[in-house]
Amino acid sequence: MKSVFPYDSVELSPSGREVIILDQSQLPNQERFLHLTTAEQIFYSITRMKVRGAPAIGIAAAFGLAMCVNRYRTRSLQALEKEFLRVKHYLYISRPTAVNLMWALDRMERCFYAAIQSLGDADERHAIEVVRNALTAEARAIKLEDVEMCEAISELGFSLLRPGCGILTHCNAGHLAVSRYGTALGPIYLAQQQGYSPRVYCDETRPLLQGARLTAYELTKAGIDTTLICDNMAATLMSQGKIDYVFVGCDRVAANGDVANKIGTSSVAIVAKYYKVPLYVFAPTSTIDLDCRSGAEIIIEERPAFEVTDMYYSKRMAPKDVRVYNPAFDVTPASLIAGIVTEKGILKPREIKNLRRVK
Amino acid sequence: MKSVFPYDSVELSPSGREVIILDQSQLPNQERFLHLTTAEQIFYSITRMKVRGAPAIGIAAAFGLAMCVNRYRTRSLQALEKEFLRVKHYLYISRPTAVNLMWALDRMERCFYAAIQSLGDADERHAIEVVRNALTAEARAIKLEDVEMCEAISELGFSLLRPGCGILTHCNAGHLAVSRYGTALGPIYLAQQQGYSPRVYCDETRPLLQGARLTAYELTKAGIDTTLICDNMAATLMSQGKIDYVFVGCDRVAANGDVANKIGTSSVAIVAKYYKVPLYVFAPTSTIDLDCRSGAEIIIEERPAFEVTDMYYSKRMAPKDVRVYNPAFDVTPASLIAGIVTEKGILKPREIKNLRRVK
Repeated sequence: MKSVFPYDSVELSPSGREVIILDQSQLPNQERFLHLTTAEQIFYSITRMKVRGAPAIGIAAAFGLAMCVNRYRTRSLQALEKEFLRVKHYLYISRPTAVNLMWALDRMERCFYAAIQSLGDADERHAIEVVRNALTAEARAIKLEDVEMCEAISELGFSLLRPGCGILTHCNAGHLAVSRYGTALGPIYLAQQQGYSPRVYCDETRPLLQGARLTAYELTKAGIDTTLICDNMAATLMSQGKIDYVFVGCDRVAANGDVANKIGTSSVAIVAKYYKVPLYVFAPTSTIDLDCRSGAEIIIEERPAFEVTDMYYSKRMAPKDVRVYNPAFDVTPASLIAGIVTEKGILKPREIKNLRRVK
Repeated sequence: MKSVFPYDSVELSPSGREVIILDQSQLPNQERFLHLTTAEQIFYSITRMKVRGAPAIGIAAAFGLAMCVNRYRTRSLQALEKEFLRVKHYLYISRPTAVNLMWALDRMERCFYAAIQSLGDADERHAIEVVRNALTAEARAIKLEDVEMCEAISELGFSLLRPGCGILTHCNAGHLAVSRYGTALGPIYLAQQQGYSPRVYCDETRPLLQGARLTAYELTKAGIDTTLICDNMAATLMSQGKIDYVFVGCDRVAANGDVANKIGTSSVAIVAKYYKVPLYVFAPTSTIDLDCRSGAEIIIEERPAFEVTDMYYSKRMAPKDVRVYNPAFDVTPASLIAGIVTEKGILKPREIKNLRRVK
């Protein structure tokens, strides 16, 4: 698969001492890269959505943890362990809904203790070096596996498409949200490369406008036929027969096939069902949480009111004393989902529970 | 019914020479009244949504026509007729979807010719006075009937509610959209006055944010428990059982019961159907268009891209080269509507066609 952009949205510097991210909160107006060197900067970048998208957050957290360990000045392995656990627990709570964050941090912890166990009688200074290298390698592996996942999921998603089709997408599950290519947008880039000329409609995705700012930015930059709509216009397009597929990413898949994704996904799913348009959820297996029985168990992050009352880059536009409800995600019932595309195959929602055997 | 606000959103000055509107494009940040004295100002106020809401537009157009005739300096009845028809045809195309606009202007035209016919041998100067007075009185009658309609429709809508219920509304069908009280919001004001303590959730209604700016403004000003959400959050609230009814206004009802209303209404309707929440459409009989067989015949206004790409009061927030689709209204299929509340009674959508006998 050909690369779409000259940079990735999350990188670890060759020295392992800087996490470099494209500041997504400034897009599409500014392409600004941030060089992060503290746990606090990583945390803030995640909470303020300078880096966002479930896989990209996982990668950023793993890189952040490796970077903090690489930078922490100590000769004591015990002090390093303490710092490692402090940063890990701190980053763990930066966003509650996406499971990749916890998954990546837990994996880094397993790597940490595996490295210590492998040490044998190494002197402490050497041991610290071994642990640092192991963590850096593990974080890079998490990203590399994500690239491979994206390539696999893009091929699978591409197999669903036909030339000239219209695809609706919600939020951003593209290059910016992952290591490279994207999940829900990956098949679209592939379709474009294969001469399918896909037509893409992107929901703006209120309140933070990831569709208008990020998806429209990515797709137009890649030369794809892209039309921006407000979230409430999708039903009209479907009634006109302009949408053949809905492709969305996801933050967490429960064992029963319920899917938590950006607020508004369940609404799109209900409308798509009404108009008989198939909805495919693009879910790397890292987003599948078999410990979670159904969508009802997923904690939905509620975000601050100002995201709704004060427009992006702008003045207030709702009265001062109005109460606001601002959930960041919603749950799409399994019954509304045509298929869940993982890098290992396209599953019916009811088949998710069988994944335990695969994992 | 007690008045909710100390002013109406559209007034004709006592002299009949000024149309006074509350500039809704500046709400909720500024309460600014405009004194309009030309047809061009009326036209611009309608296209730029300084006055909006199907009944309010009809009233503003009728007032505008009367005002222009009152201000037009002539001693020739023929010249006055020419000016009358010029202004009428000019205002007729200011917005295409709301039927009240055409309805009010056609009614003013019938009044014009009825007044001329009644003149007999009156001298021309006296005739001009008679025509002016007739048109001014007709425009005031259109507003007065609208107030009575709102009172009737509010009582009927109120009969559907129970104490402590949760109501979702989309766009603004309140005091600001009509002469007084509102259609979909009228029953809520009445419920509040009767001690029902209704809980209202208002969709912000992208792209022009009538829900965030106008409905939230009206309701909070009236002391009603109001929560603002983005359009894509309604499904989440319904899944939580917080919404007992959806109340919306409408711009046009076709003979088969299909309803054209602010973009996003059909999406809310599909989601409400999925969660078995009844949707009531508040439709003064003036919005019912029996000449229109179904929603497919209704012209849906498409508005400029900047409304989507550039936030209200703000900087651009989508990439420069993205295409935009910006329909202002959509059609809600009759099958999704629990009832259509007119000032003459609550009808099932299939009963709309029987209205010919009533009208």
